[in-house]
Amino acid sequence: MSYTAPIKDMLFAMEHLANLEQVAQIPGFEDAGLETAQAVLEESAKLCESVVEPLNIAGDTQPSSFEGGQVTTTPGFKEAYQQFMEGGWQGLQHPADFGGQGLPKTIGAACVEMLNASNISFALCPLLTDGAIEALLTAGSDELKATYLEKLITGEWTGSMNLTEPQAGSDLALVRTKAEPQPDGTYKVFGTKIFITYGEHDMAENIVHLVLARVVGAPEGVKGISLFVVPKFLVNADGSLGARNDVHCVSIEHKMGIKASPTAVLQYGDNGGAIGYLVGEENRGLEYMFIMMNAARYGVGMQGIGVSDRAYQRAVQYARDRVQSRPVDGSVAGSAAIIHHPDVRRMLMTMRAITEGCRAMATTAAAAYDAAHHHPDAEVRKANAEFYEFMVPLVKGYSTESSLEVTSLGVQVHGGMGFIEETGAAQYYRDAKILTIYEGTTAIQANDLVGRKTARDGGKNAKDIAAQIAKTEEQLLASGTAAAQAMALRLKNAREAFLDVVDFVVGKAKASPNAVYAGSVPYLMLTGNLVAGWQMGRALLVAQDKAAKGEDVAFMQAKVVTAQFYAEHILTRTTSLRDSILAGGESTCALALDAF
Amino acid sequence: MSYTAPIKDMLFAMEHLANLEQVAQIPGFEDAGLETAQAVLEESAKLCESVVEPLNIAGDTQPSSFEGGQVTTTPGFKEAYQQFMEGGWQGLQHPADFGGQGLPKTIGAACVEMLNASNISFALCPLLTDGAIEALLTAGSDELKATYLEKLITGEWTGSMNLTEPQAGSDLALVRTKAEPQPDGTYKVFGTKIFITYGEHDMAENIVHLVLARVVGAPEGVKGISLFVVPKFLVNADGSLGARNDVHCVSIEHKMGIKASPTAVLQYGDNGGAIGYLVGEENRGLEYMFIMMNAARYGVGMQGIGVSDRAYQRAVQYARDRVQSRPVDGSVAGSAAIIHHPDVRRMLMTMRAITEGCRAMATTAAAAYDAAHHHPDAEVRKANAEFYEFMVPLVKGYSTESSLEVTSLGVQVHGGMGFIEETGAAQYYRDAKILTIYEGTTAIQANDLVGRKTARDGGKNAKDIAAQIAKTEEQLLASGTAAAQAMALRLKNAREAFLDVVDFVVGKAKASPNAVYAGSVPYLMLTGNLVAGWQMGRALLVAQDKAAKGEDVAFMQAKVVTAQFYAEHILTRTTSLRDSILAGGESTCALALDAF
Repeated sequence: MSYTAPIKDMLFAMEHLANLEQVAQIPGFEDAGLETAQAVLEESAKLCESVVEPLNIAGDTQPSSFEGGQVTTTPGFKEAYQQFMEGGWQGLQHPADFGGQGLPKTIGAACVEMLNASNISFALCPLLTDGAIEALLTAGSDELKATYLEKLITGEWTGSMNLTEPQAGSDLALVRTKAEPQPDGTYKVFGTKIFITYGEHDMAENIVHLVLARVVGAPEGVKGISLFVVPKFLVNADGSLGARNDVHCVSIEHKMGIKASPTAVLQYGDNGGAIGYLVGEENRGLEYMFIMMNAARYGVGMQGIGVSDRAYQRAVQYARDRVQSRPVDGSVAGSAAIIHHPDVRRMLMTMRAITEGCRAMATTAAAAYDAAHHHPDAEVRKANAEFYEFMVPLVKGYSTESSLEVTSLGVQVHGGMGFIEETGAAQYYRDAKILTIYEGTTAIQANDLVGRKTARDGGKNAKDIAAQIAKTEEQLLASGTAAAQAMALRLKNAREAFLDVVDFVVGKAKASPNAVYAGSVPYLMLTGNLVAGWQMGRALLVAQDKAAKGEDVAFMQAKVVTAQFYAEHILTRTTSLRDSILAGGESTCALALDAF
Repeated sequence: MSYTAPIKDMLFAMEHLANLEQVAQIPGFEDAGLETAQAVLEESAKLCESVVEPLNIAGDTQPSSFEGGQVTTTPGFKEAYQQFMEGGWQGLQHPADFGGQGLPKTIGAACVEMLNASNISFALCPLLTDGAIEALLTAGSDELKATYLEKLITGEWTGSMNLTEPQAGSDLALVRTKAEPQPDGTYKVFGTKIFITYGEHDMAENIVHLVLARVVGAPEGVKGISLFVVPKFLVNADGSLGARNDVHCVSIEHKMGIKASPTAVLQYGDNGGAIGYLVGEENRGLEYMFIMMNAARYGVGMQGIGVSDRAYQRAVQYARDRVQSRPVDGSVAGSAAIIHHPDVRRMLMTMRAITEGCRAMATTAAAAYDAAHHHPDAEVRKANAEFYEFMVPLVKGYSTESSLEVTSLGVQVHGGMGFIEETGAAQYYRDAKILTIYEGTTAIQANDLVGRKTARDGGKNAKDIAAQIAKTEEQLLASGTAAAQAMALRLKNAREAFLDVVDFVVGKAKASPNAVYAGSVPYLMLTGNLVAGWQMGRALLVAQDKAAKGEDVAFMQAKVVTAQFYAEHILTRTTSLRDSILAGGESTCALALDAF
């Protein structure tokens, strides 16, 4: 059952929700209008649909394997990566100065979604490379940039992010990897890193590890962490590869999903010390790492959207083909394709509405990123940066938590066949479960949303967004259609629930931190739900207008229906979340520790 | 990380919610009081904890395998089954007349939960045998009973249920397996059955297949389906095993979970016809099958509760051990065990509250089953039968859907380690996904709840239950504690939401079937949530009373906290479900078919 990239919906979101034509007015993005977007998406779709997606099941049944320090990836991955590289896809969003194509994230994000819909395991390699590129762009010296950036941006070399250690996962204060300064300005790195995605593989000739470590004598905790580049192979002055560095893969993990993506344990310095190069200044590693993390978090959100769409498409195909039972409304005499059954519709519509809502949210967030980084006006940059910062935990947290629901429904639509591995639906269910964990668990995203994004500015940014949502409600009410009325009502309820919780968070974060943080993930789910629903409300306004004008009527009507479904089935969840957050803070932490 | 059967909570539910002492007054159950229950549970726990649970991971890593028509189960399963059999566990709930122990379901269900918490794959074999026993007890001739029942009840032979065919899953009207009457009164059976759990294995010397087939010339659809016994080995007049029957396993499935449990494709009649024996009358097969199904559905509900408890216990153990980050309330200086973090608490409490709520619901349902089948007073039997019938789709549907959430949270508590297979948490997530599918998907349970259990009697039974819940609310309000007030409020909101939906279902089932059935699964989730919450409300009343009297204070206080958490975090979900059901019927089915 093949994958078709949802180009039309992506372009709709870019054009009508993210205002791509406005993005294309930012200096440097002049060529990045709708036409470019369409051409890029079509090319990307070709590669994803015909090269990358067909390897997805093989990646599951013939995972990456480890022997003698070497990782062999799934047959076909190396060749596909070669095509990815030759197409210039790694450089899509990166600066032209270093060989990239310099396209806005608004367009690039759609390509990331497609790649992940096709094959999360494959897509992880470029995603990690993106993180390394971001870190070097932000904080790397000219020399580091000159040595590494071009090769990373072409995709000839890949990147990896080395944060986690056995005792240090979410809590990076506990990092123990050690860096000893050398007389020549380099460092020798010693330690063990675990859970390193594509930390070792055979798809590229070099791997550029970005490594958190503690310089000898540095302060304890997060203030003593520095960031280093540690290449698998040292690089000679002429850019050619030199000696093998002292970093070695000692094993890879046996995981529930994303099996083609090797998850390495890397040992640094067992033979005298791995040579590392400081990125930026000593003890500022966490700050730089957050830049990588923020890019990666957004990317993981796109993974959630991608796998959701893929699960949806497979479920639709199955529901059209599988004949079973008579429809309850008697519309078909005898047994019918199960897509005629209301509960199958409910499942498919839930999958569809969540996926489109999250895509709409992520696309508008991407446009904010572009403006935040490239707009000539500092005020515009600042406002967009605030908006984008608020969106990152939502894109990451809400899209990935929702992907668990969507991929579960995908299995469920298949009935018993969904549980049989050959069908393919189960793989999405297994793959998706990592998305709520890596690059910061949902709780970590929620802490960010509560602490840095809501409480710190007294809820100002949150309330600004609520005010924008209220404007969309007014427009919906003014339009007068039944679908718009339904959306306005549910948006209003959800926005009011959101504001109740914002007040609770802001008011109690200091006095009752346990009660507030007990509600942090529900708050994230409420907010993500609301913001995605808001974008669906905006989409509804555009679509009903277009449909009335006879433009692309089938697509536009479908958007209206999907938006109304989102309002009535997904936005309605927010009031219950509010109730549990406001009422339930105390009971969450009330059980005696030894009673568990 | 070992499993400890929750004997105390099981006995609490039996004693205080299901009123076991009253069950023990029913003729035949005189010995089945609390003392017996405790002794049985302790023995069962020994077997489960020390023999069955330790095989669970091996069942996943060394699944049942198929070669040359033979299935070899996971190493150790055969020996464990021997111990299970020798302990008399298969006969626990079956009549003493045929060698069983004749204990009430109220006690037996707890043993089923333990077995499934330990090892779902293993527990499936006895669960299927139970179904075969039920069918023969209900509809088998004396001869069939004499030939098969005793061996099934000892566990020397096992049973299987053969419903599904490639084209006939939820829709049994499409069954094509054919039965040709023979002059000697037997039938020759021809056809292919798929998804047959323990349809072939090496743990017992014979397998008694209960098979749905169509007698030649029978009416089309479900009214032409008959039920047959088709033994793997024919049985001689003296009870010894005779010739191999013409039913053969041709393959087993490669599944996402419950891998130790062989899921067979069975071929009937390739060599002249499998000899089958009619159960009951021709063309009444579906009716008998429903008896098996109802028993099995309840059993699958217990599987959901079992795997939820197991996932909870493993997550608690990990959360106590794993040290990471500083608590937000500053209660620990430096990094602490993650059980100190509010979001980890929220996840653990959610797992705990749902598991206890479902257990409480299932235990009270079991007591109703016992009274419905064995009480001397016909009125009492009838009232309990109605209650039990209403409970079956809830125990099956709500407990298993909830187990998806619970096992997902179980992985999440483990962070990255949860995604690594060796940890064990991922297996529960994979195993649980079948529970919402087999023995009738959640949609099938929901159709049953809407159609036969709610609309058919105009909502009478549903409203009777709501009236009982209202009485519990009054008791809670009268008690005056904060926990009881919180519970009363949330129960009231949930009950009112339930009644709104019952009116909607009853009022619109005929006129707007699509809108009603679009809300069927949300209605099931609302109702299961409410009924489990009601039992938690009753538990709260008992527990705060006991705690006040100084009886078993730690346990009773924990029950109060867990019940309050259930009220504030789980019961609060019902109002959103109501809103989506009442508003969302139209948008669910509004999308044009070709727009998906």
